[in-house]
Amino acid sequence: MLKDKTLIYLGPKGSYTELAVKSIFFDDIWEKTKCEINNSIINVIKKTDENIDYIAVIPIENSIEGIVRETVDNLINIRDDLFITKEAVIPISHCLISKAKNISAINTIMSIEQALAQCSHYIASTFHNVQLVKTTSTSEAVRLLSEYPDNYAAIGNVRAAEIYGYNVIAQSINDVKENKTRFVKLDSSPAPRTGCDKTSIVFSASNTPGSLVDILLKFRENNLNMSYIESRPVKNVFGEYRFFVDIDGHITDEPVKSAIAQIMPLVSFYKFLGSYPRSKSN
Amino acid sequence: MLKDKTLIYLGPKGSYTELAVKSIFFDDIWEKTKCEINNSIINVIKKTDENIDYIAVIPIENSIEGIVRETVDNLINIRDDLFITKEAVIPISHCLISKAKNISAINTIMSIEQALAQCSHYIASTFHNVQLVKTTSTSEAVRLLSEYPDNYAAIGNVRAAEIYGYNVIAQSINDVKENKTRFVKLDSSPAPRTGCDKTSIVFSASNTPGSLVDILLKFRENNLNMSYIESRPVKNVFGEYRFFVDIDGHITDEPVKSAIAQIMPLVSFYKFLGSYPRSKSN
Repeated sequence: MLKDKTLIYLGPKGSYTELAVKSIFFDDIWEKTKCEINNSIINVIKKTDENIDYIAVIPIENSIEGIVRETVDNLINIRDDLFITKEAVIPISHCLISKAKNISAINTIMSIEQALAQCSHYIASTFHNVQLVKTTSTSEAVRLLSEYPDNYAAIGNVRAAEIYGYNVIAQSINDVKENKTRFVKLDSSPAPRTGCDKTSIVFSASNTPGSLVDILLKFRENNLNMSYIESRPVKNVFGEYRFFVDIDGHITDEPVKSAIAQIMPLVSFYKFLGSYPRSKSN
Repeated sequence: MLKDKTLIYLGPKGSYTELAVKSIFFDDIWEKTKCEINNSIINVIKKTDENIDYIAVIPIENSIEGIVRETVDNLINIRDDLFITKEAVIPISHCLISKAKNISAINTIMSIEQALAQCSHYIASTFHNVQLVKTTSTSEAVRLLSEYPDNYAAIGNVRAAEIYGYNVIAQSINDVKENKTRFVKLDSSPAPRTGCDKTSIVFSASNTPGSLVDILLKFRENNLNMSYIESRPVKNVFGEYRFFVDIDGHITDEPVKSAIAQIMPLVSFYKFLGSYPRSKSN
């Protein structure tokens, strides 16, 4: 099934996304998969949106930092026949990685925004005057060490340190140890019903957030449990929000179909993102 | 009233927060106010939390990037007699600022995360290989230019360029031109009822987001319009959220008191953040 497809994911080599790809999404067929790695979430989504033969894996939510804004703000614009078809949750454990051998040599730390935020207390308590450099992924930060002096460090996973051949000078530096990231697969073929599914949608309530209640009530009236809700501003005016909601069930299930039909008159924007098997590790 | 108080706000000089402080929060008494500037949102909140004589002004929400995570994640821990007492909304217009005189000389851009994100399309379409450095504020990025070579640029406002004496090499570079930030004042004396107020609260629904519906219904049953809702994960497990909600009315108004009393049995966490006059520029 995958033989004519190209898998594209957030890289470079050694990213947490790659870890998710290899250990969960494509563990059985990894060796046979044609892969393309891209350093930007926007570009991974864009290329998959433009190529029906592409499958993407991207991070969507972290247990500490919340929704990955770059992912969800771009998912709302994908074509209607591109779907979330699988999810996976993996534990996150950050290391401080450098050419240098000890912390006292470090005056600059590079990583993706979320990782810098997840280690902010560690950084504040360990370093006095440190420059924080934003990169497109944790593994890109580790890869970039080759281009900078020894006083640069990167925050990334232990595998990236191995791949690029640098020192791990501190381990498990994330402030909250219980740290997980959820990744999703995007594919042009929707996932079939398994009986243990969830459905992801995004909608805008009309211009008062109060109308959100009417919409959420429709899920309840159809006995649908809502397992996730996050809000994002609509990017031009205060007070207008898009809500990313996960409900239990598959889009082909009667209660899901019925609830979606009932919320239609209540939303000013609606997009079905996909129905897919629920991950057991959530 | 302010004479024994110290105003602390996010700096350094030339920050958008300072603009909000001078043009709205303290426009009439600015000259007489004892000020302290701090470069970290966490520290501004912490110092105000520890000193009953401090008043703080901090950014809380941007129309493009949403909630300021650093602000709201720290507001949930402040003492119960420290309140939001005023809000103000100001337009945001970013400039590219540098010692250099033109764009071709630039290979590094510094700013606060939100400003980098708000200019991400401009950056991607203007620069090929540019390093993005994260700073604690836009004005700190401009101030820091003195410590770096000419190929560094900062994203900040035109006033900061003037204050620190650098060139504005591009103006209005934010991707969405209609860009506003909301700031709030924190004070130990709660704001009295004006008749045109809003109330900010934060709560956790129990472990299923579905229980959010029950809570929102209580606002509706008391005829309270909800003008704002954002979710933040509780920082250790997936599926548990804190909701930041603004409802119309003052905490001394009967419908507000009644709704709050009714949601108490439904929440696993609740904090009153403040009642204060509604800004007309929202």
